[in-house]
Amino acid sequence: MPERKKDTKRKEPKDKQQKQKPMQKKKVEGAALIGIDVAKEDDLGEWYQQVLTKGGMLAYYDVAGCYILKPWSYAIWEHIQGWFNERIKKMGVKNCYFPIFISADNLQREKDHVEGFAAEVAWVTKGGKSDLEKPVAVRPTSETAMYPYFANEIRSHRDLPLKLNQWSNIVRWEFKHPMPFIRSREFLWQEGHTAHLTLDEASTEVLQILDHYAGIYEELLAVPVVKGLKTENEKFPGAEYTTTIEGYIPATGRGIQAGTSHCLGQHFSKMFDIKVEDPSPVKEGEQKKPPIHVWQNSWGLTTRSIGVMVLTHSDNKGLVIPPRVADIQVVIVPVGVTAKTSDEDKEKLYKEIDDIASTLRNASVRVETDMREGYSPGWKFNDWELKGVPLRIEFGPKDSAAQAVTAARRDKEGKSQIAIAEIGSAVPTLLETIQADLFAKAKADFDAARKQVTAWDEFVPALDAKNVCLIPHCLGDKCEDEIKELSARKNQETTEEAHDARAPSMGAKSLCIPYEQPAQDLSGGETQCLNPNCGQKAKKWVLFGRSY
Amino acid sequence: MPERKKDTKRKEPKDKQQKQKPMQKKKVEGAALIGIDVAKEDDLGEWYQQVLTKGGMLAYYDVAGCYILKPWSYAIWEHIQGWFNERIKKMGVKNCYFPIFISADNLQREKDHVEGFAAEVAWVTKGGKSDLEKPVAVRPTSETAMYPYFANEIRSHRDLPLKLNQWSNIVRWEFKHPMPFIRSREFLWQEGHTAHLTLDEASTEVLQILDHYAGIYEELLAVPVVKGLKTENEKFPGAEYTTTIEGYIPATGRGIQAGTSHCLGQHFSKMFDIKVEDPSPVKEGEQKKPPIHVWQNSWGLTTRSIGVMVLTHSDNKGLVIPPRVADIQVVIVPVGVTAKTSDEDKEKLYKEIDDIASTLRNASVRVETDMREGYSPGWKFNDWELKGVPLRIEFGPKDSAAQAVTAARRDKEGKSQIAIAEIGSAVPTLLETIQADLFAKAKADFDAARKQVTAWDEFVPALDAKNVCLIPHCLGDKCEDEIKELSARKNQETTEEAHDARAPSMGAKSLCIPYEQPAQDLSGGETQCLNPNCGQKAKKWVLFGRSY
Repeated sequence: MPERKKDTKRKEPKDKQQKQKPMQKKKVEGAALIGIDVAKEDDLGEWYQQVLTKGGMLAYYDVAGCYILKPWSYAIWEHIQGWFNERIKKMGVKNCYFPIFISADNLQREKDHVEGFAAEVAWVTKGGKSDLEKPVAVRPTSETAMYPYFANEIRSHRDLPLKLNQWSNIVRWEFKHPMPFIRSREFLWQEGHTAHLTLDEASTEVLQILDHYAGIYEELLAVPVVKGLKTENEKFPGAEYTTTIEGYIPATGRGIQAGTSHCLGQHFSKMFDIKVEDPSPVKEGEQKKPPIHVWQNSWGLTTRSIGVMVLTHSDNKGLVIPPRVADIQVVIVPVGVTAKTSDEDKEKLYKEIDDIASTLRNASVRVETDMREGYSPGWKFNDWELKGVPLRIEFGPKDSAAQAVTAARRDKEGKSQIAIAEIGSAVPTLLETIQADLFAKAKADFDAARKQVTAWDEFVPALDAKNVCLIPHCLGDKCEDEIKELSARKNQETTEEAHDARAPSMGAKSLCIPYEQPAQDLSGGETQCLNPNCGQKAKKWVLFGRSY
Repeated sequence: MPERKKDTKRKEPKDKQQKQKPMQKKKVEGAALIGIDVAKEDDLGEWYQQVLTKGGMLAYYDVAGCYILKPWSYAIWEHIQGWFNERIKKMGVKNCYFPIFISADNLQREKDHVEGFAAEVAWVTKGGKSDLEKPVAVRPTSETAMYPYFANEIRSHRDLPLKLNQWSNIVRWEFKHPMPFIRSREFLWQEGHTAHLTLDEASTEVLQILDHYAGIYEELLAVPVVKGLKTENEKFPGAEYTTTIEGYIPATGRGIQAGTSHCLGQHFSKMFDIKVEDPSPVKEGEQKKPPIHVWQNSWGLTTRSIGVMVLTHSDNKGLVIPPRVADIQVVIVPVGVTAKTSDEDKEKLYKEIDDIASTLRNASVRVETDMREGYSPGWKFNDWELKGVPLRIEFGPKDSAAQAVTAARRDKEGKSQIAIAEIGSAVPTLLETIQADLFAKAKADFDAARKQVTAWDEFVPALDAKNVCLIPHCLGDKCEDEIKELSARKNQETTEEAHDARAPSMGAKSLCIPYEQPAQDLSGGETQCLNPNCGQKAKKWVLFGRSY
């Protein structure tokens, strides 16, 4: 459950659109007026805003920190939903819906949990003009909404495992600078909540879900992630342990939490009294065994995933959407039609385009034809590039004569020809190639930016060079805090807003303890923790980075 | 957009579960302990609560008016979503997501609209411990959240039609007595919002959607509805006109609004300044035409539909779920296995059950086998009847010998045999028969309860006999109010709570002006309005009834 932060600053954040800034900034070479007018490398914040709004994903809204998800981005969410639903249903997870409101009593039942969320809970205090007798919290996550129900529902070990999931909206009234998809006051997510008889069974599920989360990023969004365990400092409030997938934004060199799967242990089941009789047989002479508090998990993945995808793939021409989640995978644009083209020829061409579209539709390709009158092919090309459609097909009289189409990939320069006779198989294959190439490129970037660092002097320079760092670490929480402090650029303005706008200058925190550890084994206890002030032995290679 | 009420009483409602009442009421004959212990005909409220909770659809929650939708009911909602999404996507409607919070400024922009909703809007006034500078409303419906966006997005007639839909949660902080699914403070729905260049185009869509809504009820939920127009009194606040599907609950004789599709006219587009240049050609000598404010529709259908389905079909054995929306359509229960049955025979039988289940799964039947140990077949039968699974298949050694299964329909008494060789075709056919029979029965009930009444003296007795009445009416709003008053049972306690608990005693209001009018034409202006104090001529046959 990402996006939770313990300390918040109590001032209203400003949305980009609320600053009255001049729209015309440094112009990107070759970009048309409908396009992005600032380069990704020059001003990531402004570029991101333009890519999202001009690409048709998002619109700004008059409540700060809340955004409108337009159909183009919501369709990506629907693809994620379909993919994930299929997999969790096979695991026996059932979808359901719990109320958005949580009573103060329940919200406050698990101490660490409420401490973690109290600062950013939104409260409904009025209905119409009347003050409510008891204000109700808007869910910042649903553990405390669901677990009284678990206590009622689970009467015997036969009721286990109980595996529920819901797709819902979540509200966290953060006072940090908001960023569409990445940090917003309302977001969409799924949250799974399960109860098991044993820790073993719970732990197995935690990792199954983590694999599915990695699948959503790597297989659907073409975004590489690193799987690992959160340190004590960074785990979910109330969890026994938190597993995570961590992403990386090359443009800023910052890590980003991408999805988390928690084992809650018995922390909540003890607070909410969720228990069953021990089903193991009592041997002769043995006393009756005490009841077992169930072992619980919770896991969540949010619309943040869409923001990570955009930040990873998109460029100065606009969005780049991976084919598997693009609601339009292929757009066909008629070309070579001029004022001199006869109505008959035009009609023939359009008919051929319809036929090509039909062939593709029958091959399960999501295709659209752009027959808009009054726009030049060039304008249309820019428009679809801005929207990030993975493949453009151009079709004109010359193509018709050659019985081929001209194909232009969104992710690479250049064009190629595809024979019409082969289009039903060639286009799906090409889409899969685009998907694979997007992932390979992003993976190469992330791999190159994960530096194994064994000397403190190299740590901050590596961060400054937009890397995340694998360092030998003692796993101490105070040491972690100290590393954060030592790696912050003190001589710069360090407000949160400045971080978002420019190169990151905040300190590095631990992203995760990667499951895949470097070859150099630390278990011998020979290696020192990287923090020069620490003095402890390193226990694990831990991934540190500046982060979102 | 159902469930809106103009006048509310300012006291906190009580949920059934909050009254500490004795659980053991009048026992239904033959019901097992796990079953319903009060008859539908004796105490509908208590029966409804038991059917929902014991049938596994719903659980109570500690915030009044909010309920937990368990997987068994949420799956019905998912079936509705799939069915409706498929149809609206063909109409060019796109799914999206708008924020749950609405600024006070926007909420108040359309006068009638805000008057209709103000009394039941929930307000967030605090984030963490800080008071918000500006409280935000939790959406009671999203017209005012969406239409500033429409104004930005629609620049030219080429941007029309704009057709958006969202699946979301809605909050209306009602102070009336809540009823699960039927009237709750939070509910789930879809809301469609569209903009068109012409009234004609908008009006066409209004009715297309109304047809889909009728389809959800009649084809999926097997619940008959009457299509019609709302009177001025009952239309959506801010609408030009409201079309509706109206259902009927035989057990109480009350009508129930089941889904509404509104033409908003230009009321909102004028307030939110959503306009385009007139695209029709300007003739020589003509002045430039003024811009056109777009014509808008909005339409919504809620989880109330699930409650209507339950009230319609379920009985004293529990839920009855129509096959098309049942997440488990068929359950197979092994029978005839005793302590004497050899392990080998048992294994053989279970293997055969697995094969039958596979065959059904391959025929796209949603099937489950109940192999739970330690429960008798009789107990399992009751359990699945309580849950409302449409078809139970029993399979034991005798069935195996006959190479047939024993099938028991949930909706009818008696059992039948189906040869295993035919099961892949016979069961899907039988499920469709069950679906059709459920609808036919409910339709016969509704048809019989729609009385055409032409004398005032017959009106209240017909209502008291659990009918809804088609009456000649002048369409005057004050006359409508008067009919409501005249038809209330004054000599009884008439609090809202009493209405819910017992036979309805509130006055009748207009449900709709049915599109299908009786043969007797009123256009001649010969017939008097039914209200004896009115004196006006009747204009239409209007369906009046006591209602939810």
